[in-house]
Amino acid sequence: MEQMSNEMPHWLTKRAFLTPDREAVSDGRRSWSFWELKERARDVARRLARLGVGRGDRVAVLMDNHLDYAAWIHAISFLGAVAVPLNTRLAPAEWGWQVADAEAKVWVFDESLEERVCEADEAGWEAVRISRQEIASTSPAEVELVERICLTDPATMMYTSGTTGRPKGVILTYGNHWWNAMGSVLNLGLQEDKWLACVPLFHMSGLSILMRGVIYGMAVEIQAGFDPAEANRSIHERGVTIVSVVSNMAARMLDDLGEQTYPLSFRCLLLGGGPAPRPLLERCRDKGVPVFQTYGMTETASQAATLSPEGSLARLGSAGKPLFPGELTIRKGDQTLPPGEEGEIAVRAPYVTPGYWKRPDATREAIRDGWLYTGDIGYVDEQGFLYVLDRRSDLILSGGENVYPAEVEAVLLSHPAVAEAGVVGKTDARWGEVPVAFVVLRSEGGVDEQVLIRHCRERLARYKVPVQIIWTDALPRNASNKVLRRKLKAKLEQRMNEG
Amino acid sequence: MEQMSNEMPHWLTKRAFLTPDREAVSDGRRSWSFWELKERARDVARRLARLGVGRGDRVAVLMDNHLDYAAWIHAISFLGAVAVPLNTRLAPAEWGWQVADAEAKVWVFDESLEERVCEADEAGWEAVRISRQEIASTSPAEVELVERICLTDPATMMYTSGTTGRPKGVILTYGNHWWNAMGSVLNLGLQEDKWLACVPLFHMSGLSILMRGVIYGMAVEIQAGFDPAEANRSIHERGVTIVSVVSNMAARMLDDLGEQTYPLSFRCLLLGGGPAPRPLLERCRDKGVPVFQTYGMTETASQAATLSPEGSLARLGSAGKPLFPGELTIRKGDQTLPPGEEGEIAVRAPYVTPGYWKRPDATREAIRDGWLYTGDIGYVDEQGFLYVLDRRSDLILSGGENVYPAEVEAVLLSHPAVAEAGVVGKTDARWGEVPVAFVVLRSEGGVDEQVLIRHCRERLARYKVPVQIIWTDALPRNASNKVLRRKLKAKLEQRMNEG
Repeated sequence: MEQMSNEMPHWLTKRAFLTPDREAVSDGRRSWSFWELKERARDVARRLARLGVGRGDRVAVLMDNHLDYAAWIHAISFLGAVAVPLNTRLAPAEWGWQVADAEAKVWVFDESLEERVCEADEAGWEAVRISRQEIASTSPAEVELVERICLTDPATMMYTSGTTGRPKGVILTYGNHWWNAMGSVLNLGLQEDKWLACVPLFHMSGLSILMRGVIYGMAVEIQAGFDPAEANRSIHERGVTIVSVVSNMAARMLDDLGEQTYPLSFRCLLLGGGPAPRPLLERCRDKGVPVFQTYGMTETASQAATLSPEGSLARLGSAGKPLFPGELTIRKGDQTLPPGEEGEIAVRAPYVTPGYWKRPDATREAIRDGWLYTGDIGYVDEQGFLYVLDRRSDLILSGGENVYPAEVEAVLLSHPAVAEAGVVGKTDARWGEVPVAFVVLRSEGGVDEQVLIRHCRERLARYKVPVQIIWTDALPRNASNKVLRRKLKAKLEQRMNEG
Repeated sequence: MEQMSNEMPHWLTKRAFLTPDREAVSDGRRSWSFWELKERARDVARRLARLGVGRGDRVAVLMDNHLDYAAWIHAISFLGAVAVPLNTRLAPAEWGWQVADAEAKVWVFDESLEERVCEADEAGWEAVRISRQEIASTSPAEVELVERICLTDPATMMYTSGTTGRPKGVILTYGNHWWNAMGSVLNLGLQEDKWLACVPLFHMSGLSILMRGVIYGMAVEIQAGFDPAEANRSIHERGVTIVSVVSNMAARMLDDLGEQTYPLSFRCLLLGGGPAPRPLLERCRDKGVPVFQTYGMTETASQAATLSPEGSLARLGSAGKPLFPGELTIRKGDQTLPPGEEGEIAVRAPYVTPGYWKRPDATREAIRDGWLYTGDIGYVDEQGFLYVLDRRSDLILSGGENVYPAEVEAVLLSHPAVAEAGVVGKTDARWGEVPVAFVVLRSEGGVDEQVLIRHCRERLARYKVPVQIIWTDALPRNASNKVLRRKLKAKLEQRMNEG
């Protein structure tokens, strides 16, 4: 009797065979069919093979969002190699560190980034550094490309910072990507969809859209960066049905939308990147925007839990339930906590990473008994809906009570004069820590510090109310637009030292 | 580093957790939500456990189409046992044979079938025979039900005959069902669907609908039998969006539809069971019926190839391309034939059965080098679209059921007066085809046609019994002494033409 195999045809080859003429990727001006995407990816693969890239090799990819990104991801898999997407916003030294850690054979980049790439110290890594434009002008090699993939083989490796020290390479297998795509489709359904990628393709939120595109046979629109008007235009004029965003992006899209409404074809605003402020969710609800809150991370190949269509109105603020093939529990140590109790979110699913690259200790610490301990804090209600309270590293401990910055920020944001807010803990002799808020005001309005603090006092327990408001022009955010609270914290400490 | 596991939460438990209130199954009058279905299935499981059913045990299920069928399939899996659906149209002796071959621990049946069940000879099997109504009145046992399933574990076993007499048990794992459901969704998409099961649930075409229902979170309407007016009513009045049929059923639905057209919500008429007559496909096209031809069998957990929406009009008569996770080639022996050339259809996919129960030789013959040799004849065109020319050259398709000549011939030969027998299909307006037997008598004996037909009736399902016996002096045979059924068929057609 044969064991069930974990092999299947190469996704892009198969997709191009099934639906050659369907649109695969577009950027609002140009578009490639699946057949074209496959041909381009195979062509890139043959040129890349000239540099000696073969099965299992890592290829670092430092590129902005564009159509070629899709071709490159598949080209690397046609050689059985592993794509290592680099964050374009990092400092050159950080790129160099990741390239070295990954032991990448080739580091390919957009020509426009060449100058900065050359700033990376060459110590510790041996990758061939070459721009994709230069590779395009080489001649293709005669090599056998991968025809079948194995779900247990690594497909990509992406670095995440985590809470402490150096970033770690998160290995994701073809199976991880596959199972996450299946879990998502069983929740969101599949129609004649077009998914907008205006989040970076070097992040899981963007990369997962490329993976789903080829598995589902679905069009993906790639935008170079996030522009709320352009995102809205793709929905209104170019048939985009699903958009992945974080809270801040959603808010700006709604601002741009103004008095208009979205067409019915727009069926899913997938809202990730942490707990969403309640006022934003209420605004979406009031305007009939089909918002689906989701919770996920690189280690879960994107979504780990997502609110189902049924739940989205009734459970405002929840990130839903774990995708069909997966499970989620709240833990305190190795103990599973009952509904309503706050603890660490743990995930078990076929889309969970097998581990961190060359970090057996970190892997053993994060994945225990098949469960990924996320380090994030949340609870589930009686029906199993997940409420994410905060990332653990951001937790403010004040007089034995837990303060979750996101909760405080949401209250600040509900004040009409506040555009952005970030809350961190300040060391305090009496309470251990106390919350302090950084606030960006709306251009048209102004508000007194005491008025804003009173606004919080009326809505929060005393220990959660910021002891101080620091006015600022902008909040530091990462490529996914998440507020970087640790930078705020550094800023605060600097002020205190100076003051 | 952890290996990707093949485990996931039990499908029905997980589905009831995700979407408890959604409709799971209905029969046009009653309906159960997923929560209700789960509760009922778990209740049945606990009662069934009283009979000693545990992990790996086979449970034969002899039931008509009704809501309880769904509860029973899942109940058996809650015990880690394997469901063995029996065809209600078989003769009691055939049931007994399958129960014995499966070494079933329990044989559960609808009370209405009790009299016929008692006709089954008790020799050779030790299953507890009990009606589901009787089980319902027992008290539930305190047992631990299965919370997680493993994709490599067997879920169901269904008997199919073949070229060699006795039926064989086709083992299907959870993974086989899962992968087929995934392949199907990637082709047909998933909306707020309702799938009509008016084909028998004891066949793969019906059972696969139950599996998809729970995986997709999709409503399934179960009809007791096929009635074209009732099928059409479910589309017009009860929101059915997908219907599985064979040609004969599709034709009768169109007859009943008359001058009406279907609502736009009806998006897929999945047409299986062998090559469809071209006039029927043209009729569907002219009426705007969204017909999708498909090719599949028990061994592939239903669909192996299905026409995609794009292809359905342009490729009339094609059964499409293999589902996303699978492959299909045309073989002559072990050689792959080029496009356009006719040969044996071979399938390789994670939804292909691991093999036949207790039949290592038959398994080795059917599955070679990972490829399932189907015995069916077809070709692929330059674009890879499959055209099925004929099921195993000698298969008789009668009213949606497969009749294997070898099985009928074996029964004829068991009569002392019969020296040789050859069975072929005769075209029939109502059933598509009906079996006819050519018989050579032993020189010493004689037998009346009606006696011989009665002999068959006692041992075979009604639809397998020859409608006519044609006495002859010798059967055409090849050099290896195999009956040349195509020559018999030619002879039959000649007789019919002569009048």
